[in-house]
Amino acid sequence: MNSVKKLFGIEYPIIQAGMVWCSGWRLASAVSNAGGLGLIGAGSMHPDVLKQHIQNCKRSAKHPFGVNVPLLYPNIEGIMKIIIDEGVKIIFTSAGNPATYTKFLKDKGLIVVHVIANSKFALKAEDAGADAIVAEGFEAGGHNGREETTTLCLIPIIKKAVSIPVIAAGGIADGKAMLAALALGADGVQIGSAFAVSEESSAHINFKNYILSSAEGDTKLAMKSLIPVRLMKNEFYRQIEIAELNGANREELLSLLGKGRAKLGMFEGNLIEGELEIGQVSAGLDQIQPAAVILRNIWDEFLKQKDHISKIEI
Amino acid sequence: MNSVKKLFGIEYPIIQAGMVWCSGWRLASAVSNAGGLGLIGAGSMHPDVLKQHIQNCKRSAKHPFGVNVPLLYPNIEGIMKIIIDEGVKIIFTSAGNPATYTKFLKDKGLIVVHVIANSKFALKAEDAGADAIVAEGFEAGGHNGREETTTLCLIPIIKKAVSIPVIAAGGIADGKAMLAALALGADGVQIGSAFAVSEESSAHINFKNYILSSAEGDTKLAMKSLIPVRLMKNEFYRQIEIAELNGANREELLSLLGKGRAKLGMFEGNLIEGELEIGQVSAGLDQIQPAAVILRNIWDEFLKQKDHISKIEI
Repeated sequence: MNSVKKLFGIEYPIIQAGMVWCSGWRLASAVSNAGGLGLIGAGSMHPDVLKQHIQNCKRSAKHPFGVNVPLLYPNIEGIMKIIIDEGVKIIFTSAGNPATYTKFLKDKGLIVVHVIANSKFALKAEDAGADAIVAEGFEAGGHNGREETTTLCLIPIIKKAVSIPVIAAGGIADGKAMLAALALGADGVQIGSAFAVSEESSAHINFKNYILSSAEGDTKLAMKSLIPVRLMKNEFYRQIEIAELNGANREELLSLLGKGRAKLGMFEGNLIEGELEIGQVSAGLDQIQPAAVILRNIWDEFLKQKDHISKIEI
Repeated sequence: MNSVKKLFGIEYPIIQAGMVWCSGWRLASAVSNAGGLGLIGAGSMHPDVLKQHIQNCKRSAKHPFGVNVPLLYPNIEGIMKIIIDEGVKIIFTSAGNPATYTKFLKDKGLIVVHVIANSKFALKAEDAGADAIVAEGFEAGGHNGREETTTLCLIPIIKKAVSIPVIAAGGIADGKAMLAALALGADGVQIGSAFAVSEESSAHINFKNYILSSAEGDTKLAMKSLIPVRLMKNEFYRQIEIAELNGANREELLSLLGKGRAKLGMFEGNLIEGELEIGQVSAGLDQIQPAAVILRNIWDEFLKQKDHISKIEI
């Protein structure tokens, strides 16, 4: 049996990425009820908001779900306490050192997955006792690795480095890309952008429509001197770009970034001044659908392409 | 029958990329004799040198071979004349507008393939009458697209845009990655870095060993304000990086680039002052082998993984 399905007790080895301002309990439970693993994105939630989302998800999800926690965010201790107290069974940690919380969480009985972008942190996560890792390539939206290793180059390197299950992320939005990831050796896939434009995504409709109308080259890895993050190009992105071209230092960039830019863009729909995190694969997305339909289409296309590939004469 | 095999009359849909200072007649004929399509890289050759390489390749290759011509290089007219006069049957054009030479070459009876990195140029190539295109992702070595679209994201976009055969390039060095490319819809693959370290590659042994010792993050897309090119990090790369961080203009960058940097690094083995073009996939390469062995291993692994993927229960 597929190691990712077995680990989480799910029907398809497809994880919906925990995304700031997009993946609350509605999206996570929709994906879980459709047979994938839904993740609540804690990165954009105050602890009390997260608590509410977990409680709602527990009520509405009939199958396993989890929470994604970016370790560089504030209130981490409060967030971890809520996750434990609410009896969450699956946690994905990202953007930080896997050694910090993995043992603590494993001791509490949780399944722990850590998101990495290079083999150094993949090994660290495995050594810390993580149950699996998400290997995220350069094309992924949001926070990203400094090495800029693409999913196609990253998965084989990570599979060689560790023996725990590897979930591929970055550039995957359909069944053909899912098959490509498995061909490279991945045990499952994590999908963000395709679910960011789902009906149940809490992203603002302006942001969803902006994603759907985007084309090749419309996302870029920005803020490399702070922490690399893949953004949709807009006026805010251009301000960051100009500042970086002019050699802005860390403090100047932090000041330009300010507070609440991601909420302003992704949740409140200000496409000019807001920060819009999304993956490169968004260039190929063209409609808003229920998460269950998106998941089903990915799975059906995966099976169809797998069948096609197994039969082609080359 | 596979459209790429059919187009060129070859045994495997695997093309050895035409690479400056790496792929002369020895490499091209070795790949062709092993059943792939070998390409002489004209980009680093004066017309009379190219003529010699073509003549040697005609003598030693028992199967089809071709020539890659970067259209932005000098002496293009002289190079085209030699290619026609010597009766070359297959040409790959890159780094330029496909409309310029495709009709001329087609009228002379050549098979014409154009290298692109976005759908705009894919359509231009198809409209100009190209027989196939190479779609090259962000991870590829050497000249690269401004959109930074990775192979995983690029292939589905290009397959949707055109109906001529699509050859995937960038990040492919083994059979699993070849299967991933075909899962995405590609009809064949073009492989550079893996052949740059082959025995028959004319790259200097210092450069080959530098590639073999490299790791994740050791290549970067540089010179984005001139023409993006993926380089191995070294002292020359760092000079370029510092100049760009300091806002160097086009003239300052051209002056720093100077003349003969690529020859100095890749052909003469000066790892400090030379320009070292190579793909991101070089992080996973670890030995120097004959081109025929490299090709055979890719093909065998491709078949094995295809068989594995078709049988796995998920």
